Amino acid sequence: MNFTDEFSFLASMVEDYLRDYFDALLDAIPEKKLAQSMRYSIMAGGKRIRPVLALATAKMLDVSVQDMMPVAAALEMIHTYSLIHDDLPAMDDDDTRRGKPTNHVVYGEAMAILAGDALLNEAFELLVRNSLKAGENMISALEAAHLIVNAAGRDGMIAGQVIDMESEGKTVNAETLAAMHRKKTGALLKASILAPAVYARAADGTRKALSDYADCIGIAFQIKDDILDVESSLEELGKPVGSDEKNHKSTYVALFGVEKARQMLEETTEKALNALVPFGEKAWFLKETARYIATRKK
Amino acid sequence: MNFTDEFSFLASMVEDYLRDYFDALLDAIPEKKLAQSMRYSIMAGGKRIRPVLALATAKMLDVSVQDMMPVAAALEMIHTYSLIHDDLPAMDDDDTRRGKPTNHVVYGEAMAILAGDALLNEAFELLVRNSLKAGENMISALEAAHLIVNAAGRDGMIAGQVIDMESEGKTVNAETLAAMHRKKTGALLKASILAPAVYARAADGTRKALSDYADCIGIAFQIKDDILDVESSLEELGKPVGSDEKNHKSTYVALFGVEKARQMLEETTEKALNALVPFGEKAWFLKETARYIATRKK
Repeated sequence: MNFTDEFSFLASMVEDYLRDYFDALLDAIPEKKLAQSMRYSIMAGGKRIRPVLALATAKMLDVSVQDMMPVAAALEMIHTYSLIHDDLPAMDDDDTRRGKPTNHVVYGEAMAILAGDALLNEAFELLVRNSLKAGENMISALEAAHLIVNAAGRDGMIAGQVIDMESEGKTVNAETLAAMHRKKTGALLKASILAPAVYARAADGTRKALSDYADCIGIAFQIKDDILDVESSLEELGKPVGSDEKNHKSTYVALFGVEKARQMLEETTEKALNALVPFGEKAWFLKETARYIATRKK
Repeated sequence: MNFTDEFSFLASMVEDYLRDYFDALLDAIPEKKLAQSMRYSIMAGGKRIRPVLALATAKMLDVSVQDMMPVAAALEMIHTYSLIHDDLPAMDDDDTRRGKPTNHVVYGEAMAILAGDALLNEAFELLVRNSLKAGENMISALEAAHLIVNAAGRDGMIAGQVIDMESEGKTVNAETLAAMHRKKTGALLKASILAPAVYARAADGTRKALSDYADCIGIAFQIKDDILDVESSLEELGKPVGSDEKNHKSTYVALFGVEKARQMLEETTEKALNALVPFGEKAWFLKETARYIATRKK
């Protein structure tokens, strides 16, 4: 099977699960507008990268995709809540996301805040319910939940957003830039890959390898993003000023220049691939993911 | 021991636990402003009703207060996050709470949103960690966590806030008013009393009795609040127009008149006390709580 097909296959499983889940919520909650607001952002066309990585890693470690699905869905709910809150007028004040009006534009600011809260809460409900149902795997399921909650919280995703806010309009050093990305996007990405390993009670060596891989693709993703921002503006506008530069955002390109950034991307991707060597052929999807991140056109 | 002394004793245990917890966070998190913002609202002088009820019910059911403390603290974190978000300009737009500037006034709107998110997340982290440590009580601890997460979510506290928002400036019927309070404040209050029962693996009859009690004091609390709002304005301003009426809020007094509201308060309190009969003397604190709710002066 090729990478694109497998990605689409896993993403569509996630899509179906989430659609069923939020259709059922829409029936179950008397407060329809709340349910609609939650459903709107969940179904707004995300690429489902986190849940797909969770399911693919589960397959690699011989954990059933069925068992991992609630965890995968919880990851997407946490990601979605963070986007709703980040888009708020008091935060990044974004009116559109993926070509659609953001949650607060459609449902108003108050409802967007509450829908975000409710999605975070829902993720936890799913994780707790999943642990209760896990039978002899209860401890592993709980440990996976713990890992995810940690990644989402005050020393993970939320801390990353704080660093991002506090860096706005400033030139930050490489260390701060790395910490910001590691927490803001890296932490939950890493949790998506490690949760199946924890669930599978994988050996320490396995966890370490996956942890190294996750760190590398997190960094590679961000470097590539920064490079794309400059390249796409070169192509479209004929001048090398991307939206990041216009918005005074600190980027790898701004800090190191395009050439050095490209070299860093190559090295980081190489490290990601090396971390997967112990898994052999079974790691094909994670390897292709690393290659895709480095070579994608958008 | 009398009620006031026992309440103060339990509240000060909660206070100490929360202070230690957030002092430690302040040391542990590199993002100081986030930790300060979380700590500010947690230590802003709340009465600690929910955690005190959790600890008192635990004592009544012979669950150790030590065991219940993380659960009690998680309840207070959830309550506090909801206050921070409710106070935001996009929601109730309140500048002060308990005589102090609200979180967003001190730390800005963006940080207040994130501090609220982080407190909700922290509550879950505490509940998950507590379940992992519970050993043979793991299932009970998880079931208590499930109960709390449910009460906080899209069919509990958050739904209540949605009903409150949507009722603003409108006259709602008794049913909507009851649903709003049952979800907005009643659900988490009830979870505070039921979580120790679940943790203690109490019999169905015990849970039912405590559930009835919790429903009644939730309603009684709200009716008394509505009566106090009218009475205090009578005393202070010499005219029977409370802030609720000025703000066009639906209240029990507005719907039923003061006399009928007083009668409802009496009946509901009686029902709360009756629900506790099976517990005999052991329920003294919960009985006194019901009497206190009905007779308090503010």
